[in-house]
Amino acid sequence: MKVVINLNNEKETVAVIGAGSWGTALALVLADNEHSIQLWTRNEEQKDEINHDHTNQKYLPGINLPELITAYTSLEDALNGIETVVLAVPTKAIRQTLREIIKFQMQPLTFVHVSKGIEPDSLLRISEMIDEEIPKRILKDIVVLSGPSHAEEVSLRHPTTVAVSSKNMEAAEKIQDLFMNQNFRVYTNPDLIGVEIGGALKNIIALAAGISDGLGYGDNAKAALITRGLAEISRLGTKMGANPLTFSGLAGIGDLIVTCTSVHSRNWRAGNMLGKGQKLEDVLNNMGMVVEGVRTTKAAYQLAHKYNCRMPITEILHHILFNDVNAKEAGEQLMARLKTNEMEDLVDILSEQMEQL
Amino acid sequence: MKVVINLNNEKETVAVIGAGSWGTALALVLADNEHSIQLWTRNEEQKDEINHDHTNQKYLPGINLPELITAYTSLEDALNGIETVVLAVPTKAIRQTLREIIKFQMQPLTFVHVSKGIEPDSLLRISEMIDEEIPKRILKDIVVLSGPSHAEEVSLRHPTTVAVSSKNMEAAEKIQDLFMNQNFRVYTNPDLIGVEIGGALKNIIALAAGISDGLGYGDNAKAALITRGLAEISRLGTKMGANPLTFSGLAGIGDLIVTCTSVHSRNWRAGNMLGKGQKLEDVLNNMGMVVEGVRTTKAAYQLAHKYNCRMPITEILHHILFNDVNAKEAGEQLMARLKTNEMEDLVDILSEQMEQL
Repeated sequence: MKVVINLNNEKETVAVIGAGSWGTALALVLADNEHSIQLWTRNEEQKDEINHDHTNQKYLPGINLPELITAYTSLEDALNGIETVVLAVPTKAIRQTLREIIKFQMQPLTFVHVSKGIEPDSLLRISEMIDEEIPKRILKDIVVLSGPSHAEEVSLRHPTTVAVSSKNMEAAEKIQDLFMNQNFRVYTNPDLIGVEIGGALKNIIALAAGISDGLGYGDNAKAALITRGLAEISRLGTKMGANPLTFSGLAGIGDLIVTCTSVHSRNWRAGNMLGKGQKLEDVLNNMGMVVEGVRTTKAAYQLAHKYNCRMPITEILHHILFNDVNAKEAGEQLMARLKTNEMEDLVDILSEQMEQL
Repeated sequence: MKVVINLNNEKETVAVIGAGSWGTALALVLADNEHSIQLWTRNEEQKDEINHDHTNQKYLPGINLPELITAYTSLEDALNGIETVVLAVPTKAIRQTLREIIKFQMQPLTFVHVSKGIEPDSLLRISEMIDEEIPKRILKDIVVLSGPSHAEEVSLRHPTTVAVSSKNMEAAEKIQDLFMNQNFRVYTNPDLIGVEIGGALKNIIALAAGISDGLGYGDNAKAALITRGLAEISRLGTKMGANPLTFSGLAGIGDLIVTCTSVHSRNWRAGNMLGKGQKLEDVLNNMGMVVEGVRTTKAAYQLAHKYNCRMPITEILHHILFNDVNAKEAGEQLMARLKTNEMEDLVDILSEQMEQL
């Protein structure tokens, strides 16, 4: 294990809200850069484990946490004296967390969100939810951090690359400096919408890829599915105002590949169990962690209708998840439904995208 | 195992030249469609095994070959009475094979090539080599078939999708009909250059991905590498006259994903051994199969200079393979070299591509 310290940064104290695997791994990156981290968890035992044993065995087994990371169960204490808050809670918990934050917060904050989802019904991206919930007096900037980055590997200091984006690129650059080191490479990308959409929608394709693997379809089928998945993410994202190029980058195809092919991906694992014939309810109970892709499928299905956008994988997955359609039959239907001339289909997508550039 | 017969095709007799894993798997697809296959191999024992035991244990262990497949060691016999020849020999052996074919052949042939490479020094694609070697009197059409398609999975009838292309799209459609069935989906793509380039260059990135895995860098690093790899393939391919959209399709990102992430990929396996510190010579001796990516790296390195095209992954891989540069140092150099603003880089590529459309 190689830990490379980034000595160029000014040291600051940062709050990380959420001590799951990703929140804890990001706290570790910040600690490697010699920042101090106030890590919030709802769980008293987990707080004690982090502060006394310097581990978080449930989420990052076997990893030692530096003393620069201090855990709190009081949100007020975790937010004390900080200017940057990293939101690492599931999409479903974002609004509630924000409402608790504003009870205590007096000074303007930069919100860095690292979750991947879209809210069903409102169809808002996470930065939009933050913008809706946080009063202007304490809202400095909103930055998203996203990319191919399994927490387990980040905690082992394996080389990892992510993208950051914001409406205010100076804020994105500041967050780039905060996290960047030799193992954790951070790239700026001005396309906030694309970075958020790419991160959210890849979980849908990961669920589908897991189903394909669970059905025993193999790597050839999965590669075809990922290829078509990228096409439909790109099609919807572009209609929503994203730059199509983002989907060719780290927050697009990069994140999609890692989520669909790595053993670490919980969306893939959930899909895999569905493909093997388990019921959605049982799968979600067995996981014990949030599977973002399930809610995102609902949101993306609604978005496809809102933007009149053809999304065959999302549509079929929606039927499997919410209409109790048999995964095997649906998978065969999907294979049969692919268009005969792949170029025609891609040209359709590009023409739509060109209009947006 | 589900074998679905395509009853819509007229039945014909097809020659498949080369009884390695891919040639044999494609013979199997054709036999599932009730065509008769004359499969050529240089090896007398392999011929006897195929004709008497109906297996090809070295290349497709455990698979039964239908009686519609007959093996020959005489090229003249294998070509007897056929109009379509599938060339499934390594790129290095293509010219010699073509020169032997023209000795016996009297009637015009459609050449379907399924190999993935570019010839060093001449820098020709395989269709260009065929065009150079085959006299007009016996050259009907040249078709390429390429995509995410590990032979082992095709032989197990797992769902697989590939693209076919030709200067004459009617010929491509005829080959589509010949191979298409419910397990093996064939898509036409009019971009011959792109389909050939995508198939050839992905082996370079697969070698690099294997090195990354051999060094223990993990899935995050590999996803970043694949993302950047696709960008440089796309950059060169577009300069060579390909349609950039092809690289977003099956013969581009689809094939790249399967080759970089599947245990079946021999280019990935070779890279993996290099990453673990083995010498190139030993790796190639141990494999016992052709590793196309090694020669393709040489050709792509020459193409990058010819087209004045920035290809950092190809360049570093070339140093590792041919200049005895240490893989670990080179890998770290590569990580450090990635540009800071990923969007700038992608915009560069798109602007180049737009000029070509």
